Amino acid sequence: MTNKVLRLVPLGGLGEVGKNMMAVEYGKNILIIDTGIMFPENDMLGIDYIIPDFRYLLDRKNEVKAIIVTHGHEDHTGAIRHVLEEFNVPIYATELTRGLLEVKLSRGGMLGKANLNTISAGDEVQIGPFRIEFFHVCHSIPNGVGLGITTPAGLIVHSGDYKFDHTPVDGRPTDFGKLAEFGSRGVMALLADSTNADDPGWTPSEAVIDPAFDDVFRQAKGRILIGTFASLISRMQQVANATERHHRSLAFVGTSMVENAKMARKLGYLVVPDGLVVNLDQALDMKPSKVVLMCTGTQGEPSSILGRLSTGRNRRFDVSPGDTIVLSSTPIPGNEEMVHRTINRLFQRGADVIYDSISPVHVSGHASQEEMKLLIQLVQPQHLIPIHGELRHLKQHAAMGREIGIPADRIAIIENGTPIEFHDGKMKVGERIPGGYVFVDGSGVGDIGPSVMRERETLSREGFVIVHLTVDCNKNRLAAEPEIVSKGFVFVRDADTLFNQAKEQIKKIAEADCGKDLEARIEKSLSKFFYTETHRRPMVFVFSTTLP
Amino acid sequence: MTNKVLRLVPLGGLGEVGKNMMAVEYGKNILIIDTGIMFPENDMLGIDYIIPDFRYLLDRKNEVKAIIVTHGHEDHTGAIRHVLEEFNVPIYATELTRGLLEVKLSRGGMLGKANLNTISAGDEVQIGPFRIEFFHVCHSIPNGVGLGITTPAGLIVHSGDYKFDHTPVDGRPTDFGKLAEFGSRGVMALLADSTNADDPGWTPSEAVIDPAFDDVFRQAKGRILIGTFASLISRMQQVANATERHHRSLAFVGTSMVENAKMARKLGYLVVPDGLVVNLDQALDMKPSKVVLMCTGTQGEPSSILGRLSTGRNRRFDVSPGDTIVLSSTPIPGNEEMVHRTINRLFQRGADVIYDSISPVHVSGHASQEEMKLLIQLVQPQHLIPIHGELRHLKQHAAMGREIGIPADRIAIIENGTPIEFHDGKMKVGERIPGGYVFVDGSGVGDIGPSVMRERETLSREGFVIVHLTVDCNKNRLAAEPEIVSKGFVFVRDADTLFNQAKEQIKKIAEADCGKDLEARIEKSLSKFFYTETHRRPMVFVFSTTLP
Repeated sequence: MTNKVLRLVPLGGLGEVGKNMMAVEYGKNILIIDTGIMFPENDMLGIDYIIPDFRYLLDRKNEVKAIIVTHGHEDHTGAIRHVLEEFNVPIYATELTRGLLEVKLSRGGMLGKANLNTISAGDEVQIGPFRIEFFHVCHSIPNGVGLGITTPAGLIVHSGDYKFDHTPVDGRPTDFGKLAEFGSRGVMALLADSTNADDPGWTPSEAVIDPAFDDVFRQAKGRILIGTFASLISRMQQVANATERHHRSLAFVGTSMVENAKMARKLGYLVVPDGLVVNLDQALDMKPSKVVLMCTGTQGEPSSILGRLSTGRNRRFDVSPGDTIVLSSTPIPGNEEMVHRTINRLFQRGADVIYDSISPVHVSGHASQEEMKLLIQLVQPQHLIPIHGELRHLKQHAAMGREIGIPADRIAIIENGTPIEFHDGKMKVGERIPGGYVFVDGSGVGDIGPSVMRERETLSREGFVIVHLTVDCNKNRLAAEPEIVSKGFVFVRDADTLFNQAKEQIKKIAEADCGKDLEARIEKSLSKFFYTETHRRPMVFVFSTTLP
Repeated sequence: MTNKVLRLVPLGGLGEVGKNMMAVEYGKNILIIDTGIMFPENDMLGIDYIIPDFRYLLDRKNEVKAIIVTHGHEDHTGAIRHVLEEFNVPIYATELTRGLLEVKLSRGGMLGKANLNTISAGDEVQIGPFRIEFFHVCHSIPNGVGLGITTPAGLIVHSGDYKFDHTPVDGRPTDFGKLAEFGSRGVMALLADSTNADDPGWTPSEAVIDPAFDDVFRQAKGRILIGTFASLISRMQQVANATERHHRSLAFVGTSMVENAKMARKLGYLVVPDGLVVNLDQALDMKPSKVVLMCTGTQGEPSSILGRLSTGRNRRFDVSPGDTIVLSSTPIPGNEEMVHRTINRLFQRGADVIYDSISPVHVSGHASQEEMKLLIQLVQPQHLIPIHGELRHLKQHAAMGREIGIPADRIAIIENGTPIEFHDGKMKVGERIPGGYVFVDGSGVGDIGPSVMRERETLSREGFVIVHLTVDCNKNRLAAEPEIVSKGFVFVRDADTLFNQAKEQIKKIAEADCGKDLEARIEKSLSKFFYTETHRRPMVFVFSTTLP
């Protein structure tokens, strides 16, 4: 790599490209953009969350100059602790984003270690060869920014997560003027959010939620529970506004909800009149028709408050008939089933459940197709690099770019781990760097790989059988009845016949020849026997002790 | 139960109410409507499919008079083998539905045993006290019927799976006239499909697919692969028509696709000119631009043809750049993630992938809100019983019924296992009967229950550790190094330190006291140790042999 090459490297596995983490390199200088986590897919068994694989950067530790976090959502902030452990470089974020990072870092006991710097939209910061201009973007959280990065190789524009909302909750639309100004300066490459590339039209404004909330609040006779993400600060503001309009009191429920609300209020991003907010104890003592509770759990997570309420396992309070529950969210892909099950269960408990297909109580925070086209028109990039989406979204985004007139060879569809290089204004797709997912499970980071995952997969479908034997080879017989334990294979209480037949088979094999490979021979024979009998393939393990 | 009571009992677990199986009882006479399967949800680990729990009917075996199957989709036919094993009564179905049941029964070697009777829309059949009038309904398969059942207690109308398509593929709209005629006669209760109760408006006609296919076929330079369900016979017809219009040849791929197509052609429900259909070998020898392949796998099932193609594990052929792959389907709830992953992988292999958010290559076979309202208006029922939907759909459907003017106390929202009784024209919700899901796993039907499922769940998240010991209690020491095997817990090759520490701990415990409860003591201590070290909770099993 010569000094004149600019490299953009999205990091992570087969997830959304460049969403959780991205590196921008020039010479021996690297900027990290975002430090987010990914939520595990349904077949990532036992995994708590996933962080981007940044091994590539570990080899270039001294080159990493700064971390920029574009906004305060988990998929852009959640891995900050893991990244900071390796790269203790200055972090740049807007006031609210910084506040939410502080909440996260102090929970991990790392706040003291972090070098946090507050920037605002409109600011310019020079980091090594990079001059970064932050510009305001609308999203479902206030204080989000996109980036204009002037490098010796040219200007690149990174959209962050954005939408073009003309009536956002905080009154600050995306900075059209700045985008157009970049356009007039000449943009070498636009990196743009592709999340909703399959959605035609224009994403509705956050403002449509207010009348929907008004409808719900007007009709609700009893308590209102509103579920959303703990970091959807804009939604908190809308709920607070509706609570005030309808003369109720508002309680935030759950640690992250309470902490984030507190931080957002302290910084002035959540503006709530005195006396409107009460704590949960106070709320539970009030007349149901006077209360709004705001909590997490819209993804159907069994351990969340809504999850626990749906199965009657919440400690502090229960769902009562007459409650109105609003899911102000949309299922993250893969969670649909759990979300729908939660909704059904809440209905079963007598609540009235309002979700986005019934009423516009949620809108997306991401641009739809017409907004994506507008962004391209404003920025007039020489090259388009769709990011923040699965491959299918990037393909759609690229098709829109071609429609608008960007030549196909100036659009790069890449995967995480595939670098894009610019040399003298020419774009080249670089060689794939090794990497993928890093699973976090309990306190282990990255120790679970494909082989353990395959074992979990097999165990989850077939279970196992353990046989414990004591053989007396002198007498060519078993010293005791074989002991069999099985889990996840059959219902043991009803499987006497099956296991008795298995024991007979074990005895026969051991008594015929208790010598060489006895364990392997029994394992093989039992595997076959269980498959014939049940058409299942449990893992079989035989342990034998040979008496001296 | 007196002789004058009519009972309707939807059977199954927490799935869609009355979708897979329903019993209609009067006196000592029971009709079974549909015998379908449910697909397992993501957390039903290792389950192949789910059949309705019909224990309730086993106690009334002699009362079951007949089985009626409304149409040929899996969720209405798939359990026929299991039901027939218990109730060998006459089965009534239309020609195509019967043909598809025959395909299913002959694969299970049960065709000879079945008493199959062909009925047509417009026919009337008397079965015990029930006079059944079959009427035509549009759905995504031809030859579907709804039922008017005249009982001594009154007339009930069962919609089957339906939509009001004015331009269906087979040219036969839903029988509006018959529905209105029922209405004029006086309908005691309408049981109506609620699947799309969350969808406003009117479901688009199947006819919108033709121009979408034309677009795809016109632009495709290479081979076209179209994925759909094997029982979507109407879609097969549309693909065949498009293939003919665009001068290609069509091959069906996969056993169920080939068998169903053969049966539908034999019976005249799939009309294809001579020479259009070729077999796979012939298709693979032809120029890609001349070929259409139709196969299964739109749900992302790893073992399906599209699933195997997406991971490069298909035996007969691969995806090539230039292929156009059309997913003519929509993900079944819960499958979204797998479907999207399959789409991404097919894109990765260079194919152009067209799915329903890109182009209308699929429409639903179920009525949307305006159609549901129309059905109620036509039938003018005294009572409304929403069926074929999750609880959330039934709630929406009920709300629509109230809007139209059906009093709330004449609308019953029930769950599977909750009977509805009519006595002198009055509706009563009966007492819940025991029942739920019956899981089919391998050759086991119903032997896997909550406890095995919980074991699989734990194993899938945490894995297990087995310890095998031989202790010499005379010398208070281990006769050999403890043997440790673990699966799904940690990556063993990197866990030497962990397991060596565990062995030390085992030795210490055994040498301190090798007597009573040694296994339990070690299990407890190791569980704690592993949790402290890894924050994971593997199942731990200790087996010890004590030397004499």
